[in-house]
Formats: sequence, C-alpha cells, structure tokens
Amino acid sequence: MAIEGKNVIGFGSTGEGTYTFRAYNPTLGAEVDPEFHEASPEEVERTMQLAEQAFHIYRKMPAAKRADFLERAAEEIENTGEALIERCQVETALPEARLIGERGRTVGQIRMFADLIREGSWVDARIDQADPEREPLPKPDTRLTQMPVGPVVVFGASNFPLAFSVAGGDTASALAAGCSVVVKAHRSHPGSGELVGRAVQKAAEATGMPEGVFAVLHGRGRKVGEALVKHPATKAVGFTGSQAGGRALFDLAAARPEPIPVYAEMGSLNPVFVLPGALAERGEAIADGLMQSVTLGGGQFCTNPGLVLGLEGADLDRFLETASGLFAEVAPATMLNAGICEAYHAGVTTLEGASDVQVVNKSDTAPDPGRTEAEAFVFSTDVETFLGNPDLNHEVFGPSTLVVTCGSKADMERVARGLEGHLTATLHGTEADMADHQELISILEQKVGRLLFNGFPTGVEVCSSMHHGGPYPATTDGRSTSVGTAAIFRFCRLVCYQNFPQNALPAELQDANPLGIWRLVDNKRTRDTI
Amino acid sequence: MAIEGKNVIGFGSTGEGTYTFRAYNPTLGAEVDPEFHEASPEEVERTMQLAEQAFHIYRKMPAAKRADFLERAAEEIENTGEALIERCQVETALPEARLIGERGRTVGQIRMFADLIREGSWVDARIDQADPEREPLPKPDTRLTQMPVGPVVVFGASNFPLAFSVAGGDTASALAAGCSVVVKAHRSHPGSGELVGRAVQKAAEATGMPEGVFAVLHGRGRKVGEALVKHPATKAVGFTGSQAGGRALFDLAAARPEPIPVYAEMGSLNPVFVLPGALAERGEAIADGLMQSVTLGGGQFCTNPGLVLGLEGADLDRFLETASGLFAEVAPATMLNAGICEAYHAGVTTLEGASDVQVVNKSDTAPDPGRTEAEAFVFSTDVETFLGNPDLNHEVFGPSTLVVTCGSKADMERVARGLEGHLTATLHGTEADMADHQELISILEQKVGRLLFNGFPTGVEVCSSMHHGGPYPATTDGRSTSVGTAAIFRFCRLVCYQNFPQNALPAELQDANPLGIWRLVDNKRTRDTI
Repeated sequence: MAIEGKNVIGFGSTGEGTYTFRAYNPTLGAEVDPEFHEASPEEVERTMQLAEQAFHIYRKMPAAKRADFLERAAEEIENTGEALIERCQVETALPEARLIGERGRTVGQIRMFADLIREGSWVDARIDQADPEREPLPKPDTRLTQMPVGPVVVFGASNFPLAFSVAGGDTASALAAGCSVVVKAHRSHPGSGELVGRAVQKAAEATGMPEGVFAVLHGRGRKVGEALVKHPATKAVGFTGSQAGGRALFDLAAARPEPIPVYAEMGSLNPVFVLPGALAERGEAIADGLMQSVTLGGGQFCTNPGLVLGLEGADLDRFLETASGLFAEVAPATMLNAGICEAYHAGVTTLEGASDVQVVNKSDTAPDPGRTEAEAFVFSTDVETFLGNPDLNHEVFGPSTLVVTCGSKADMERVARGLEGHLTATLHGTEADMADHQELISILEQKVGRLLFNGFPTGVEVCSSMHHGGPYPATTDGRSTSVGTAAIFRFCRLVCYQNFPQNALPAELQDANPLGIWRLVDNKRTRDTI
Repeated sequence: MAIEGKNVIGFGSTGEGTYTFRAYNPTLGAEVDPEFHEASPEEVERTMQLAEQAFHIYRKMPAAKRADFLERAAEEIENTGEALIERCQVETALPEARLIGERGRTVGQIRMFADLIREGSWVDARIDQADPEREPLPKPDTRLTQMPVGPVVVFGASNFPLAFSVAGGDTASALAAGCSVVVKAHRSHPGSGELVGRAVQKAAEATGMPEGVFAVLHGRGRKVGEALVKHPATKAVGFTGSQAGGRALFDLAAARPEPIPVYAEMGSLNPVFVLPGALAERGEAIADGLMQSVTLGGGQFCTNPGLVLGLEGADLDRFLETASGLFAEVAPATMLNAGICEAYHAGVTTLEGASDVQVVNKSDTAPDPGRTEAEAFVFSTDVETFLGNPDLNHEVFGPSTLVVTCGSKADMERVARGLEGHLTATLHGTEADMADHQELISILEQKVGRLLFNGFPTGVEVCSSMHHGGPYPATTDGRSTSVGTAAIFRFCRLVCYQNFPQNALPAELQDANPLGIWRLVDNKRTRDTI
C-alpha cells in the first residue's frame, strides 16, 4: 500500500491543497517522501459536511453494527502489517517492538469499545414509570439515555503515533458513542496517519457505514486544526499535546458562538513521593524503577515522572548515588522530532542554569545531533529552591527528572499543596509510611487523576477502571478520561424521553429490554423487562 | 426570625459592605425593608477561604454524615414556616400555594440527594483486579471512583426562589457530591435567600459540619458574582438565568488561568409540534393545555412553550380560535420583578411590530403597571416569516407564545433543523402521526435535552431519569442536567487508585464493599465483596 500524501475523505482521497510538506526521519535528520497535501479550505468544508451528514445516519445504526465497524477497523489496522510498522519507525524513531506493542494496544482498545457497545449497559439507562394516581400531580413516565454529541475532531499526538492518534482512544470512543470523527493527523507522522486512516476507511466501506463517518486531514501548521475546531458542525474536540497547543484550542472553542467541549490532555510532572520507610528499605530498587520509567521511549510519555520528592539524609544520598550511576549508563535516545528535541534541550539547559539546582548526572554518551538525540538527565535541588522558582515546576518533555530534597514531612505536604493539576502522583511507601502520610495522600487526591502505590506512572492500563486525566493544567477537562471505557462519556450528552410510545423509544429504553442490559428501573438496578 | 440583611458566612453573619439595597415588592411597586449589605471584597475573600478549608474536611466525611446534614437542612427549611412563604410572596408575587409547593419540591430534592449518597452506588465504582502473571506485562489493580471538584459557586434564579436558588438543585447536588457551596443570592429575593441560607447554616452547625461548608452572599449588580467566579478556590459554577448572564459567566470562567466548568441554564423556546392527527382529534384540548402551560406562574418558566408548530388548514384555524378565546380570559399576572416585566413588554412589542406576525389575541384585561403586571399573548405567523426573521426565534420570558403555520411536513422539518439548542421539544400526535414523523423526531433528538409526547414541558419531574438541560444556547454544557440525581456528576471528577493498599482506599473501593453498593468488578455488575 503506497503512501499517497492525500487526505482521507469519505470513501476516497484527495490532495487539492497547494501547500505541501514532507515527513521527517529523526534518525537520519532528513525529510522523507512523499509530499503530503495540506487540506485546502474546500476539503475541510467538504469533510465537515460529510461528517455532519454521516452522523445523522451513523448514530441511529444499531450498536451491533457500529461494533462490526470497529472490529473490522481493528482487523484492517492489523492488516497494515509491516508497512505500517516500517513507516512509523521512519517517522518517529520508535523501536519496532514498541510500535508492534502500540498497534496491539490500539486494536485492543478499539475492540474494547466494540465489546462495550455490543453489551450496551454503558448508557446507564434509567426508567421511572408513570403514576397517574399521584397527588397533587400525576407522575409522568421518564426515561434517560445517552446521545452522541455530533461530529468530533481528534488531534493525533506525536508521542503515540498509533494509540493516541488517527485510530487512537478518542477516535475509538467517539465512534463507539455514535459520533462521526475527523482526525487532524499529526504532521510528525503523516504517512502512518494515512495508512491507519485508509484502514479505517476500508472498514467503514466494507461494513456499510455512511460515507463521511471518518476522515483524516493533513496539515503542517495550525490552519487546518483551527478551521476544524471553529467549524459549526464540530461538537467536541479531543487533543493530546502541549499545554500551549491545548489551551489555544480550548480558547478557540470557548470563544465560538456555540462553545464546545475540548478534551485536551497536556503536560504533567507526575510527582513521585518516596516515603522514608520505602527509601530505607529499597531505595536502590526505586531508583532503578525511576530511571526506567523516566527514560522509557526517550521519556516521551505524558505520564513520565519528572519530579521526585524524598527526605534528606543518608537514604536519599544513596538513592541519588544509585540514580546517578544508572542515568549515566542510559544511551541517548532519538527523539520523535526535531522540535521536541530542541524543546527538551532548552528545558534541561534552563535546569542546568538554575541557581541551586545540581546535575546529579546525565548520560555518559553525548547525544548525536544528526540523529536528533537527547541524553538522560537527573537533577536535584532543595525544597526552598523548588518552591521559589516556578521554572522548576514545569514539565521538561523527555528523559529528565528532578529530585527535590525535603527537610520534613511538612515540606512534602507544602510541595504537594503547591502543585498544579497533574495526571498522576505516585507514593512509594511501606504500610507504616502510608499510615503516617494520610494528609499527604489527601492533598494529592485533589491534585491528580490517578494515584499509584509502589509503582511507576508510565504504562497506562486500558480498562474500565482507568482514569487518564486530571485537574487543569494536566487537562482542560478534569472530569473525564481519555483512556478506558469511561472515555465514551466525553462524546455523549443526556436525553430524556417523557411519556414516549414504546416504538418511538431507543431500544435501550423499551419495556422489553431487547438489549438485555442493566438498567435503573424505579431506582432498582435490574436486567429485567418491565 | 427577623431578616438581618446580612451575608451568611461560616456560622455567623456579617454586613460589612457599605453598598446596600432593598428588595422590591412587585405587587405594590415599592421597595421593602430591611437594607441588604452587598458582600464586600473582604467578605468574598473570607467566604472563599472558609469554603476551601471546609471542603477538605467535608469531602472526607462519610456519606452518611453528609446525608444527615442534608436531611437536617431540609427539616430546617421546613421549619422556616409561614415566615419564609410570606417573605417570598412579598419578594416574588408568586402565590402562596405555588411557594408552598416549591418548598416541598426543594426539600424533596434535598432528601433525594441524601438518599442517593446514603445508598452510595451513584459513584459508579469500578474495580479491575491485578493479574501479576499477565504477559508481556503484569496487570495492575485499578479502582475508579468519583471525587468532588472543590468549592462550588451557585447563582440563585429569579423564577424559582426556592427550588433553583439558595438551597436549590445545584446546592443540593454539590453538597451531596462533597463540595462546599457559596451561593450568590438573587437580588430579587434576598430576604427569602437569607432565611433559607440561615436554615442551611443552622443544619450545618447542628450536624457537626465544618464551618464554611455553606455560605450565602448578597449583591445587587455583577460585582460579587464575578469576584466569586474568578476566585482561584472556585472549581465549578451553577447558574440559572438569562442567556447574556450565563454566557458572561461562562466567558469569565473560560478566561481564568485555570478554566472551570460553568453549568448555566439559559433561555429556551421549548417548541411544541402539533401533528395533524392530534390536531384533528383534539385540537381544542391541546389549545387549552397550551394556554395553561404558557401562562402558568406568569409564564416565567424556562420550560415555557414559546413556539408552536402546526399544519395550515381548518384544524389549525379551529385551534387558533380556541386559543384566542382562552388567552383572552387569562388575567394579567404580576411578574417577578420590574426588569422581567419590562423585558417581557419589550419582547411582545417586537412581535407586535414584526411584519407578517399577527396578534391572535391577548388578555382582555389590561395589565396594571403599578402591580408590575403582564398580559398573556398568543401570536401567529407563517413558516417563511418565521424562518426569515431571527427576532422570532428568541425566547420572550413570560406568558406569550407564537404559533407558526407550516405548509407541509417538510416545513416542520425545516423549522426543526433550523432550531438552536433548547431544553425540551414536545410532540402532540396519534400513533399514526408518530410513525409518519420519524425524521422530525430524529431531528429534534439532536436539538433538545428532553422530548415529550402528548404533554407539556412545564413541570419538571425530579427523579433519576430526568434531564433538564440541552445543547447550547439552552445551556453552556449540554452534557449534564440540573434536575434529578444525575446532577451530582456536575460537581465530580474521576480518580483512579492503582495498586493501593486496602486501608488507604475510599470505602466504596475496598474489597469488603463495606457500603454494600453496586460496583463493576472485572466488568461484572455486582454487590458482592471481593
């Protein structure tokens, strides 16, 4: 399957835009063919019109049909075989095994959503039956379900070219909810985006979906994305990327005549609190786990632990010494693209230059700029310096972490209280530590979306109980998750039917419960018919 | 219980502001004592600091304790007795029976939320157990629950001085979720606000709640409200009122360094489609029901049906004739305040002056301006005029409705497609009508939050399956409801605990299921322990 460099629109592909660009191979430091055509304003308009038309057909299809589409899409993505993995390696420099794993995760989450809507209980159907005899007024029959919001625009992420991109989590959950989806492919991996996009397109056509249910548009700068977010047919936006980028889209969406929700997942420091008992018991093992988590995939994860807190003393000194040795051995990694590599070097340069911040160590091997490489860094500072310098409180996207030496438990609590919103916080502790740090845990519960015990935040499990999100500025909407089955609610709103005749009700609300789902009937949880 | 004219802050009351105002008795057209002190900037600051401190204590109290507080608040509101009803009549001109009924609804919904959190399953707890043997990576234990967002600011509504005001739906659901609440009392009924506020305050103190869990601030203009929305401790906003007011708060909140959700319920036309079979069968009865729904409470309901669609012909002529006679007999109603009365008269004057819009009829009795009265109006026009004049597509808040004569089913669909978001849409039809108008129903599902069959939208049932909301501009957040148990999710966000020790988990996530709630364990719905 040759890469055409065109936009995937409806059941065809077009490249009408005169503005073109090429992908970049970070390992070689060179552009690669073919040319990609940035979507023209006319292509954007046509895509959104198709998405709007398709939505009205697609949302009313039985969930089982939508599940067929999703399952076929997973299959077609698998069918891209080596071609996708090879192209993706060229465009991202991520290793083959990681990309094969990420494809597995991508099709796994698509199938998870297919299972979810096939089973059907996710809509949280609620029925309260009429009581015509009630005084002073008769009680009506009311029935509540979820309604897809409409066409959704998804922005592919640079750091997950498959799992958070063209057919990633937001696309899967929006399609599962019954929304049509238009993806703005990330300009860093447009060829991978096209291959995945054509796989989904093929699945849509093969399973009888309406033309326009899914599209992928290319764009180098902000123009295409902005046009999509401002388009009146767009009803929600999913984004994973930088804080500046996410906030810009949020502001754009909030300023629309009709504001729409923007689910932007942005930066996060993912603080790790190493409590004294654990530090004494297994400081070296924690240092090893930390190094692995910080440097995994070149440190290019939103859950990368960029901040570590511990109590000053011999145990922390030993921890830092271990970390120092481990980080020295980390080979420089080729970053996803030149921009990320530059931003990383700017970030570590700021830390290197900050007063009272020490470089504990960095990779022994110098990075090769021709290969877009970055070396790993571990920094340290004391709590007063950290609290006094806002520069230290910002994510450095890449294989770097900052260890903050605290003088007391109260210091740790001060740091925790001063934190902005983050995706995760981690506690390493013994049972006694946990009992002794309840206030710290309580503060952290208010700051993050996921709390981990004796683990590391990278590696987000895809399941019903996952929450990948957090208070601002980790995301623009801390109420919702981008990973796991609960992500489907991002793209839904509630609708109530009052005194509706049976045959005009959606299946999930009919007396006979034809889908056999769990419902709340007169405030009792049941799978029974009425 | 004398009205002090002070702000209800913590367990005391203060009136430090130098700016004062009085309530207005619309029936007498005169101000009434006492003076109310607008909250000073220092009082706002103190209130928000208390709300923030109280939140951290309150949110961790067992749900049963929070339920005790809510139940006691309901009791104390009932204990306000005649004093509240009398003051409320003076301030709103609403009849005694309506206010007694509204107080019943208010305490009913507070108790509903007490029941909801006492039972506990609402948190949608989800548990996926660990699998250390899984390949290639062990599966962690993850557990998902709801977390209250933090201090919530609620704006009281003018038209529901009890049920959507100081201790109305948003306050009840936010307190139930575990948030502290600061209410900006509506300047139209400050005395009623104070009485209810002191009742809730008394309940908080009596049941051992932290000082600051609840407060009521007075303010005449926008200053106090804006300060509350901009305050960094505020984490969400509930509002019921005008489109201009709601959008202004939304814009303010979106522009904060940390944007926060604003749940503003604004205007709505609540279109009613009278389908041909129903029009022929029982046009007169529908006209009667319409008149009652339009003029109930002076037409001052957000679900007031302001737009009626029917097919031209003898049946519609008869319908209009019936409506004409019925509207003529409607006595002018004293409106809630002078501003609403003026805006209503401006609205109907626009309709009277619009070309090709006819006054079908109005109240025979002229309104008495000294009693802030408004007469009822029924207008009519044809579909082309309606579609061509955007002025006709706006809510006129008060006892007025506009009947649009359509030439065909296609005309009705055109009107429906052109609608903005509304709270409700109603269909009057026979079974044959419903089968014949599936496309119309399908369009309306995308435009509103609640669809009614053979009824009228006023009178919103408070229950688990209610949705009171709708796409913009009916609300600023069409995903959520302000009425019914699902309203609690407005003030929550998700939190996931990974590999957490049992005794550090919230009760709802512990293996033993000490609350005995329904949970999703390894994707199975169950009340069992693990």
